[in-house]
Amino acid sequence: MKSLVDQVQETLLMGPGPSSVPPEVYKAISQYSLGHLDPFFIKIMDAIKAQLREVMKTTNAITLPMSGTGSAGMETVLVNLIERGDSVLVLINGVFGGRMKEIAERLGADVDALEFEWGTPVLPADVKAQLAAKKYKLVAVVHAETSTGVANPVEEIGKLVKAHGALYIVDAVTSLGGMPLLVDEWGIDALYSGTQKCLSCPPGLAPISMSDRATEVIKKRKTKVPNWYLDLTLLMSYWEGSSRAYHHTAPINMNYALYAALKLVLDEGLETAWARHRDVHLYLIDRFGELGFTMLVDEPYRLPMLNAVVIPDGVEDAAVRGRLLDEYRIEIGGGLGALAGKIWRVGLMGYNARRETVDRLVDALKKII
Amino acid sequence: MKSLVDQVQETLLMGPGPSSVPPEVYKAISQYSLGHLDPFFIKIMDAIKAQLREVMKTTNAITLPMSGTGSAGMETVLVNLIERGDSVLVLINGVFGGRMKEIAERLGADVDALEFEWGTPVLPADVKAQLAAKKYKLVAVVHAETSTGVANPVEEIGKLVKAHGALYIVDAVTSLGGMPLLVDEWGIDALYSGTQKCLSCPPGLAPISMSDRATEVIKKRKTKVPNWYLDLTLLMSYWEGSSRAYHHTAPINMNYALYAALKLVLDEGLETAWARHRDVHLYLIDRFGELGFTMLVDEPYRLPMLNAVVIPDGVEDAAVRGRLLDEYRIEIGGGLGALAGKIWRVGLMGYNARRETVDRLVDALKKII
Repeated sequence: MKSLVDQVQETLLMGPGPSSVPPEVYKAISQYSLGHLDPFFIKIMDAIKAQLREVMKTTNAITLPMSGTGSAGMETVLVNLIERGDSVLVLINGVFGGRMKEIAERLGADVDALEFEWGTPVLPADVKAQLAAKKYKLVAVVHAETSTGVANPVEEIGKLVKAHGALYIVDAVTSLGGMPLLVDEWGIDALYSGTQKCLSCPPGLAPISMSDRATEVIKKRKTKVPNWYLDLTLLMSYWEGSSRAYHHTAPINMNYALYAALKLVLDEGLETAWARHRDVHLYLIDRFGELGFTMLVDEPYRLPMLNAVVIPDGVEDAAVRGRLLDEYRIEIGGGLGALAGKIWRVGLMGYNARRETVDRLVDALKKII
Repeated sequence: MKSLVDQVQETLLMGPGPSSVPPEVYKAISQYSLGHLDPFFIKIMDAIKAQLREVMKTTNAITLPMSGTGSAGMETVLVNLIERGDSVLVLINGVFGGRMKEIAERLGADVDALEFEWGTPVLPADVKAQLAAKKYKLVAVVHAETSTGVANPVEEIGKLVKAHGALYIVDAVTSLGGMPLLVDEWGIDALYSGTQKCLSCPPGLAPISMSDRATEVIKKRKTKVPNWYLDLTLLMSYWEGSSRAYHHTAPINMNYALYAALKLVLDEGLETAWARHRDVHLYLIDRFGELGFTMLVDEPYRLPMLNAVVIPDGVEDAAVRGRLLDEYRIEIGGGLGALAGKIWRVGLMGYNARRETVDRLVDALKKII
């Protein structure tokens, strides 16, 4: 029987992620596997940690890729920092804020949520009022809400959280590598991301970073981390120090891919990559304007890498997306929840954040609509 | 700066895993990424489920690869089946039995352990006596104890567990694809494995399977699964049915690799692959005999794919393994715990279960020793 994988067609991935992968990363992922304790692999692990610190703008010792996808990164941060009964404030304006709340609740935390309308940002004034009303151990927010295309004011909220004294958790799954994100300068204590957005690496790893303050909180836990696989107290001894104690078998080839993807970002220059995302985002707004599309999100809060465009009257959501995929091998994303059928989510992430990809999509849409 | 990954040298992986990867699998892992909800990717997901059922000899509906490594598979099975206070019996004769106990304890289970000397098998008579003394909800055992090279009598223990009425959990990380393993016939309720042993796929996914009985137990839980990422009640809606609700972004290219690896096993024939592992294992014993090595484990309990050889007097453990890796690019494993410095663990897994690989290792050892 012919292999299904041999029949996979090249697809322009312009949805909410995964994004298309550059040739250098495909080459790296298919490099010969090494053992997970081979000194040369450990050298690659060390290089990845250094690369991640550069891309995250941090000096945090605990900066490494977890062996799972972005959601495992979210759970890692929460499961290591939260103990039963801890007071947690989650700022929610989309799917991924909601997911943080769900995970924190499963861990037995005392969770409050401040909710904001989907498509609008978290409002710092509301956060300030809430922090004045109650003492929290942790405050969590999503930087780039992939479900709505909104950029939350992470820097501004960080100042409030710092003044309050809580630990500050930021979801950077979609933002990392595609827009300014300064972990240390913004006072972020725990960050997690994914590989399949602006890093243009296949999904499968979740880069995380923990400040020294967060690391101290983990070390001083009264109870064991309930989740063994994501337990940083165990993982640190595999990723740090001289002993490199076996914890689990790292996904060797996925780590090769991440190394190559991070190298591309750093060779280009992080600030240049941010500017490229912003440029192509503005270009997309222009070109989609020609088609009669408007943007869901107000200008100051628009994400460059995830564009929520309002589907004009008369354009059929699923049918058009289906034709784009079938006839043109271009994937874009539909809306979620209340936004289903109302918006498309057009990703311009990493390798795909180029004017040519926007042109390819707009040209295809002109033929279909 | 030159890429570190470009400098990776081909290495013969004859340790406890990962094992060397065949060209077909490297080709598959570097195939173009698709979206995780692309109908063609879902077709590949369905094909993987069907392949896994064949390789596991099961008709279990819930049979899928978890998006983590083998240890995540272990935790998936335990975290979904155990609720606080549940009585669990873990049979331990090596590292991985011990790890199951550790995870079950973190989940708040009432855990008893029956321990057996490392290098010897679990004794069914002792299991029988323990099951007569106390009622258990779950009994867990490792099929192929990678830390010692011992095959546990999983079929025989299964009969005792069935008579007792408990759920039967089996760790098949190292055994799957390399030795007889009949999930349905042996009454196994929950099985987990890894990709990087006898399937010769890079590490990064954990195939699992749950019997209908185990699935019912999960559906009737009184409490939510504490671990969100590994929650099968959520994952089922991504891997099953018509809606395919998004849970997390599956590691697309790792799934391609697993598909290709399973295809190789099934194209060869599962029974043929088992026989090949057995044949090359016997060949290794012969050839290592020439060098004065004996086997740690008694004949009936030896694993074919993980050979624990006793290091003869005068042979320096770390120095020889270091030279094997540096000069010959051959990796073998050292002993763990009390067996450190006393044994080597020589893997003959999947693609590497060939007489030529044994010859290459023995020839190199003859030159070094």
